[in-house]
Amino acid sequence: MTTRMSQQLILIARPVGLPEASDFELREQAIDDPGEGEVVVENHYISLDPAMRGWMRDVKSYIPPVALGEVMRAGAVGRVVASRSPKLAEGDYVTGWLGVQSIARVPAKDLRKVDPTLAPLPAYLGALGMPGLTAYFGLLEVGALAEGDTVLVSGAAGAVGSMVGQIAKLRGAQVVGIAGGADKCKHLVDELGFHAAIDYRRGELRERIREACPARVNVFFDNVGGETLDAALAHLAMHARVVICGAISQYNEVQPKGPANYLALLVYRARMEGFVVFDYAPRYREALEQIGGWLASGQLHYRETVVQGLENFCDAFARLFSGDKLGKLVLAV
Amino acid sequence: MTTRMSQQLILIARPVGLPEASDFELREQAIDDPGEGEVVVENHYISLDPAMRGWMRDVKSYIPPVALGEVMRAGAVGRVVASRSPKLAEGDYVTGWLGVQSIARVPAKDLRKVDPTLAPLPAYLGALGMPGLTAYFGLLEVGALAEGDTVLVSGAAGAVGSMVGQIAKLRGAQVVGIAGGADKCKHLVDELGFHAAIDYRRGELRERIREACPARVNVFFDNVGGETLDAALAHLAMHARVVICGAISQYNEVQPKGPANYLALLVYRARMEGFVVFDYAPRYREALEQIGGWLASGQLHYRETVVQGLENFCDAFARLFSGDKLGKLVLAV
Repeated sequence: MTTRMSQQLILIARPVGLPEASDFELREQAIDDPGEGEVVVENHYISLDPAMRGWMRDVKSYIPPVALGEVMRAGAVGRVVASRSPKLAEGDYVTGWLGVQSIARVPAKDLRKVDPTLAPLPAYLGALGMPGLTAYFGLLEVGALAEGDTVLVSGAAGAVGSMVGQIAKLRGAQVVGIAGGADKCKHLVDELGFHAAIDYRRGELRERIREACPARVNVFFDNVGGETLDAALAHLAMHARVVICGAISQYNEVQPKGPANYLALLVYRARMEGFVVFDYAPRYREALEQIGGWLASGQLHYRETVVQGLENFCDAFARLFSGDKLGKLVLAV
Repeated sequence: MTTRMSQQLILIARPVGLPEASDFELREQAIDDPGEGEVVVENHYISLDPAMRGWMRDVKSYIPPVALGEVMRAGAVGRVVASRSPKLAEGDYVTGWLGVQSIARVPAKDLRKVDPTLAPLPAYLGALGMPGLTAYFGLLEVGALAEGDTVLVSGAAGAVGSMVGQIAKLRGAQVVGIAGGADKCKHLVDELGFHAAIDYRRGELRERIREACPARVNVFFDNVGGETLDAALAHLAMHARVVICGAISQYNEVQPKGPANYLALLVYRARMEGFVVFDYAPRYREALEQIGGWLASGQLHYRETVVQGLENFCDAFARLFSGDKLGKLVLAV
C-alpha cells in the first residue's frame, strides 16, 4: 500500500465579497490506494473559473454548493499514478472534477482521457475543456447564431469569450468584443481576428457599442452582467438572442443588480436565455472534434495565464475579477 | 359640409411619475367631413392600458411616442357617422386607434368592423381586443404553453391577466394568479376558475408562490415586473418560459429596476422573452375566432370597469396603477 500526501485547499468559510485567504485552509491529507474502479491522479493544472465563486455560496443553484470542510471544487488535468480501473492506466492523462488539490482519488468513470501530444495540458481546461464547450453550445445552440449576424461578447479576452468571438467569426458573423484595457482589445483584433473591440474602461459603453455595431446586435453573449448587460440591451436588433453565460461583475456583490433595461426584450422582441454546459454532455465529443479541428488548422487561438502553487489560489482567483490575466487562468501544481 | 366638434385630450407635457391633469389639455377641435377613403367615428368607449404610460415617454420603443400637442393615442370603439369608404357604412361599429377624443376622422383601412350584437362594445377593447390577443399569443406562442404546465400570471385580475389564466386553464394548465386584494383573488378563483390566487398585498410573495406552485412554474406571464418578477424567477421549473408582457410596477418609476434574480435563467435553463402583439396581426382573425367561440360557449368570462367622461382620464388612468378596478378599464365618452 502506497500512501500519498495530497495538498488540499479546503473551504472553511463562506466568502463575503471577494474570497480571502481566511476563507480557506491548506492542509495535507493522506490519499489511499484506489479502490475498485478508482484511480489516483496527480494534478498538473487546476482550472480557475468565475463560476467557482457561485459554488462557494450556500444557495441552491445548478449544482450543490461546496460544503464547508470540503476540498474546493475545480476542474483539473493531471496524470494517473495508480489505477484499479480497466478504463485508465498509470501514465494516462485525464481531466475532470479533480478539485483544488495536488492528488485526487476519484472514480475512473468521472474522468475523460486526454492526449498531451495533441495540445498542451492546460488547453484541456480551456479551448478543449469547459470554456470551449461553453462557448460552442452557448453561441451555436442557445444563441442560435446565423451567418451574417452581429455578435457582441463581453469578457471577450477571457477563456469563454475569446472562443465565442472566434467561433462566431468562423461561422460567418461580424464579431465585436468588450474587454478591459487597450492591450486586451489589441489582442482581440490583432491576434484573434475580432472585427472590433471595445475597452469598457474608457467609459461610454453604450455609445461605443452603437458605433461598433451599426447593424445592432443579433447575439449578445454575456459573461459580465451589470452595466455591460444594460448597455448591450439598448442595442439589440429585432429578435435578438441574449445568452446568459455568467455575470462576473455581480458575483462578489452582496446585493446583485438586475438589468434595469430588460424591457428592451419587449421592444426588440428578443429573448434572454440561460444555460449550463453540462446539459450538452452527450454532444461534447462532437464539439471537441470541431474545436480540435480548428485548433489543428490554426484557425483558432488561445492564451493561458499560469499561476504557480496552490498556496496562491486566492491571489490567482482574484485576477478573474480584476481582469489581470489573458485567456484561460490556471493554477500549476 | 358637416363640421363636428370633437373633445380631444392633448398631451402637453411629459409626465414624471404618475400622469397628472397638468400633463394634458382638454380642447374642442372641429372635425371636417371624411376625405376619400376616410370615415368619421363617434367614439363610445376608449381603452385605458398600462402601455399608454410608455407612449407618453420620449424614448425609442416599439412604436413612436405620442408627440406633445397631439391627441393621446388609445384604442377605442365607436360608430361610423360619416364615410367616404366602400369598406364602412354609416352606422357600422368599428375599433382601432381612435384616440382619447369624442370624434375621430381616420382612414377606413385602419379600422376593424365589430358586431355589437355578438358582444357588448367594451368587450372589443378587452377579451375581443388587444388584451385578449395579447394574452392569446403571449401565452401560446411566446410562452409555448404545454398541457400540464403550471402557469403563473401577474396582474391576474386585469384585462390581459384574466384572459391568460382562463386560456391556460382551457388548454389544460394548472393556473395560479397574482393580484392585489382578497376580492380580486376570490374573483379569480370563484368566477374565473383559477386553481389558486395569491394576494401580493399580504406579503411574502416568494413563500406564497412556493406554496401555490408545488411543481414550480413552467410559464410565468408577467405584467408587473419589479419584486413580482424576482419572486417568480426564484420558482421557475427547468426550461421555463418567462413572458415579458409589461411591467406596470415600473412604468411610473424614473429609475426602473431590473430583475436582480435574473441569473435564475441560468440555473433553470430558462428563457425570458418579450413580444409585441402587433407582430401577430396576420393571425388576429384566427385568435378572435377562438376567443369568440369560448365566449359564446360561456367558457371564458370577463369584467369591465367603466369610468364616464374624457375629463376623468387622469383619475381613471391612475386606477391602472393603484389596482382600483377589475378586468378591463374603459372610459365611456
